[in-house]
Amino acid sequence: MWLRVSFDLVFDIEIPTPFILMLRPRSGAQQWVARESYKIEPNIQAYEYTDAFGNLCQRVIAPSGLFSIQTEAEIKTATYVDEAPDAPFVEIQNLPDTVLSYLLPSRFCESDRFSDLANAITANALPGYNQVVAIESWLCNTISYIPGSSDYAISAIEVNNKQCGVCRDLAHLGIALCRSLSIPARLVVGYLHNLEPMDMHAWFEAFVGGRWYIFDATQSGKKGGYVSIGYGRDAADVPLFNQYGPAVYPIKHLVKVEQIAKEN
Amino acid sequence: MWLRVSFDLVFDIEIPTPFILMLRPRSGAQQWVARESYKIEPNIQAYEYTDAFGNLCQRVIAPSGLFSIQTEAEIKTATYVDEAPDAPFVEIQNLPDTVLSYLLPSRFCESDRFSDLANAITANALPGYNQVVAIESWLCNTISYIPGSSDYAISAIEVNNKQCGVCRDLAHLGIALCRSLSIPARLVVGYLHNLEPMDMHAWFEAFVGGRWYIFDATQSGKKGGYVSIGYGRDAADVPLFNQYGPAVYPIKHLVKVEQIAKEN
Amino acid sequence: MWLRVSFDLVFDIEIPTPFILMLRPRSGAQQWVARESYKIEPNIQAYEYTDAFGNLCQRVIAPSGLFSIQTEAEIKTATYVDEAPDAPFVEIQNLPDTVLSYLLPSRFCESDRFSDLANAITANALPGYNQVVAIESWLCNTISYIPGSSDYAISAIEVNNKQCGVCRDLAHLGIALCRSLSIPARLVVGYLHNLEPMDMHAWFEAFVGGRWYIFDATQSGKKGGYVSIGYGRDAADVPLFNQYGPAVYPIKHLVKVEQIAKEN
Amino acid sequence: MWLRVSFDLVFDIEIPTPFILMLRPRSGAQQWVARESYKIEPNIQAYEYTDAFGNLCQRVIAPSGLFSIQTEAEIKTATYVDEAPDAPFVEIQNLPDTVLSYLLPSRFCESDRFSDLANAITANALPGYNQVVAIESWLCNTISYIPGSSDYAISAIEVNNKQCGVCRDLAHLGIALCRSLSIPARLVVGYLHNLEPMDMHAWFEAFVGGRWYIFDATQSGKKGGYVSIGYGRDAADVPLFNQYGPAVYPIKHLVKVEQIAKEN
Repeated sequence: MWLRVSFDLVFDIEIPTPFILMLRPRSGAQQWVARESYKIEPNIQAYEYTDAFGNLCQRVIAPSGLFSIQTEAEIKTATYVDEAPDAPFVEIQNLPDTVLSYLLPSRFCESDRFSDLANAITANALPGYNQVVAIESWLCNTISYIPGSSDYAISAIEVNNKQCGVCRDLAHLGIALCRSLSIPARLVVGYLHNLEPMDMHAWFEAFVGGRWYIFDATQSGKKGGYVSIGYGRDAADVPLFNQYGPAVYPIKHLVKVEQIAKEN
Repeated sequence: MWLRVSFDLVFDIEIPTPFILMLRPRSGAQQWVARESYKIEPNIQAYEYTDAFGNLCQRVIAPSGLFSIQTEAEIKTATYVDEAPDAPFVEIQNLPDTVLSYLLPSRFCESDRFSDLANAITANALPGYNQVVAIESWLCNTISYIPGSSDYAISAIEVNNKQCGVCRDLAHLGIALCRSLSIPARLVVGYLHNLEPMDMHAWFEAFVGGRWYIFDATQSGKKGGYVSIGYGRDAADVPLFNQYGPAVYPIKHLVKVEQIAKEN
Repeated sequence: MWLRVSFDLVFDIEIPTPFILMLRPRSGAQQWVARESYKIEPNIQAYEYTDAFGNLCQRVIAPSGLFSIQTEAEIKTATYVDEAPDAPFVEIQNLPDTVLSYLLPSRFCESDRFSDLANAITANALPGYNQVVAIESWLCNTISYIPGSSDYAISAIEVNNKQCGVCRDLAHLGIALCRSLSIPARLVVGYLHNLEPMDMHAWFEAFVGGRWYIFDATQSGKKGGYVSIGYGRDAADVPLFNQYGPAVYPIKHLVKVEQIAKEN
Repeated sequence: MWLRVSFDLVFDIEIPTPFILMLRPRSGAQQWVARESYKIEPNIQAYEYTDAFGNLCQRVIAPSGLFSIQTEAEIKTATYVDEAPDAPFVEIQNLPDTVLSYLLPSRFCESDRFSDLANAITANALPGYNQVVAIESWLCNTISYIPGSSDYAISAIEVNNKQCGVCRDLAHLGIALCRSLSIPARLVVGYLHNLEPMDMHAWFEAFVGGRWYIFDATQSGKKGGYVSIGYGRDAADVPLFNQYGPAVYPIKHLVKVEQIAKEN
């Protein structure tokens, strides 16, 4: 399916403020960017680099006054998420080198403390894809998904204590559980078609059966429409924006995702 | 200045043919991509990766029949090329690691065979930027620039023998001469505003005084309007397209560059 | 100074167990490896790769029975640690791309929660090197260094609550405090000459004045003799060994560091 | 088999001279470095980095006077080279991204000019491994291998004209022929057990059937004992040493390879 996604972000800046933005989707194995625009006002010098995860990041210094960023893209992505029941657990010795870092605990995914819970949740599941499905179901049934319920990122331990959270929180707990079973897992931030209420979204991917699969405990069914902007070990690695100096907050933050017709 | 650049490429394919394309400009230290589109017809699966030089490359298999690629971008680039008279030669021990490979000879730049000529050309120049200016002037005065005069890439030795060439040929000879003086040099392919006749263009950059500077023996003055698509050691590394199997040639190849007004 | 360092590690393995080891020091800006050996018994297939931080990692599957690793190296390192009083804070916009990830919070360094404490500790310090010195002094005076007091890694928040810790814990808290001031900081694991009691060691580096400087709140003075094995955002990234499957513990773990004479 | 390899290199330097050395073998898929030493005299500051091919390179400035480098390593490598008759040609679309650059022409391997010859040589061979065997046999039967016959690197075209060459020359021609058939091929420099006369050696690898295989037209049979030091597109990428400024030549250059017994 083809989606037109857009993000409109405005700040009112008091003193010149360095930003690192991560707002540019890339073409990759799961999506194709056919058209993309990225407008910064006022028109300041921006510099782009690629981080260690392959994400495109933009460095700017926002001057005082209104500072706005408008990004828009037309992207082809899958209508349904790939499924692979019974896809096997990948033995550690067979994991690609580049996947190994997704086994390590990280800021918001303290996988070193979730071994017992993960084993309990997946006790009856075949090692691999089915374990992740069990984790996803458990999240869905146990942790209340309350969009907008958290202002800042909390960790998997905190999510598990609160038993509720935003999309990012459910994903963090899912990742921590996967990694504690030696299944590589990573956070993805991006857009999702028909998300309610519409906003930026976060989900997770797990590496089983030799590739990454999408999991999202906040959605039912296996509908697709996912557009990724950034990949990382957790939310610490994939901020839509990091801003340094006195805190500033968006005065506008508008996300849109609509399906479009393409002649092909 | 803001430029709108576009490239329209059509092939008539007989049998399914794998292509590797390099047609997507990136934001970087010298340019900012504000808007970009990339359309492939028919609508086939495309996969993008980043090569060792940081270029974005697209892999596709063109089916038989008409195969077209249309790319367009709006890009901010410098109105005048930076100059730095007397900028010093960078001692080998002070070159960044990542720049060292641009000292090595390469397919079309046999720098291991140009030491005498380079020394003769730059005999009266201060080491560094001024040496490259001397090389650029020598190319301009010695090698006739004849757009369209060559169908396939020839090497610096062959260019020097023929004493004429296309933009790429002059750049290759310039690079070979720079490297033979231990000045890192690389080929850039991309667009140039007001190029006559309009087409894709190639020029070179040399690393002196701690950064890369643009040089182009096919143009007079230091007018800017350069939009880079790919960087490499020479043309072997930065093909706009590489196609495998029986040779195919574009039946349409249309390049446009126009200046546009932007509110900022 | 020249050091001979060695590490002797033996496990008694019940079932074949995949390991990822990080035991091979590399030559770099701060040390030169002149001689190195790495012996694994029994003699199994080992495969080495470089992780995203540049560390050399070895992948093996340990068979059941005794599994031993002996590494030894002769390395030149500085006799005194470099100091740079008043070296300035590096503005975010001037940090190299590759350093930016060391500003992010990580598993054991929740820098997103330490802003008030860091500001209090460094209230009277010039931004940059002096801030890190203030943090190092505060750690030294506030957090009791108790070698061997912790079996597994705890996070900066937990360390601050306990007010005591092993070398790694003090380093984690120091890193969290630096990052909360937008000073890049990273964990280093390796050897230290004359460490009491001798064992593997951990310290941290902060990026101020345009380069990395060593800090170690567990040691007084600025004695050198540091040999690094791995760099990372925190201990999660630089395990000496990661083992998958049922837990196994070393039955021997012997670290030696001795100064040696070299004719040069 | 276990080999002890060593290389002894001495220069008499007139003025301080920057060197980039590539003399440190790495552990990888095909070999394991169990012990290694690297001695530079006089004892100067050396700095090591990893190039784009993954090779370990050392940067030093040799002072005037005698400058010596002694490297030695104990390495496990295969006793016989892997063979894979009929292993298939890998379609371009299935090649890993990182392998694609080994399809491009390079300084000493002008694969863009060898298509007819390669097709003639491999006319009766199955696409893939068997084509490379046909090329290797043709080289062996057609190009006289004359160790020591060339002082500086010549290109595949020149080798084919001369119909003779050193190991590097035969490898270059083999690589050019493979690439012209869209088979990725790369140059390897390193040691070979029982090479006659003993010296540093060069051979090539081709990517067929999903992995790299060793080919060497200078040796009969499929004896192993190969120890690689560097990989590259051709000899331009893998110099044992690159020296800048007035040319200097080794006054000693001694290579040794001996089989050793290891308890395992």
